[in-house]
Amino acid sequence: MWQPCFRAHQRTNNSQRRAAHRIQRTVRFDNFREALGVIRKVGELAETEGHHPDISFGWGYATVSLNTKKIKGLHENDFIMASKIDRLLDRPDGFLDHKQ
Amino acid sequence: MWQPCFRAHQRTNNSQRRAAHRIQRTVRFDNFREALGVIRKVGELAETEGHHPDISFGWGYATVSLNTKKIKGLHENDFIMASKIDRLLDRPDGFLDHKQ
Repeated sequence: MWQPCFRAHQRTNNSQRRAAHRIQRTVRFDNFREALGVIRKVGELAETEGHHPDISFGWGYATVSLNTKKIKGLHENDFIMASKIDRLLDRPDGFLDHKQ
Repeated sequence: MWQPCFRAHQRTNNSQRRAAHRIQRTVRFDNFREALGVIRKVGELAETEGHHPDISFGWGYATVSLNTKKIKGLHENDFIMASKIDRLLDRPDGFLDHKQ
């Protein structure tokens, strides 16, 4: 599940709508190697698509974060990329994130 | 260069010494592919050594962070691992972090 991220200290009064500037998804694993394997695949997908997420990972977890630097926010391309990453993460011969 | 990280809101009065609980090093790149390549190498080293850093990377950067979860702080093994990562990052046929 992709989660929206909001800027810290963002005003939420009526005159200003609160908008996510980034989406991210975290996947859990039983070890480091599986996380590294997923990151490699996501990295190769990013190169193919020309759209590069920020990625954090370590023993047992990986978090993929998407936004569009040029507009400092979310663009349609981020959601297209998120969908492609979902297919990669959830495909039967890949890595299931049932622990998420 | 590895930088020490301190816990947020840590007291610094005379009765309590301030101790780093983590060290991290950031390397800059000209693109995403080089960062991904370095991360793969660091990840393989981590598996070989059985000591797993937390890693963040994206277009143009990679940050490797070390601590020992069991003691929630720094152990000699973190510095040994840092030294091995340095050799991997700085070797002539590898990736120089002259931009750091």
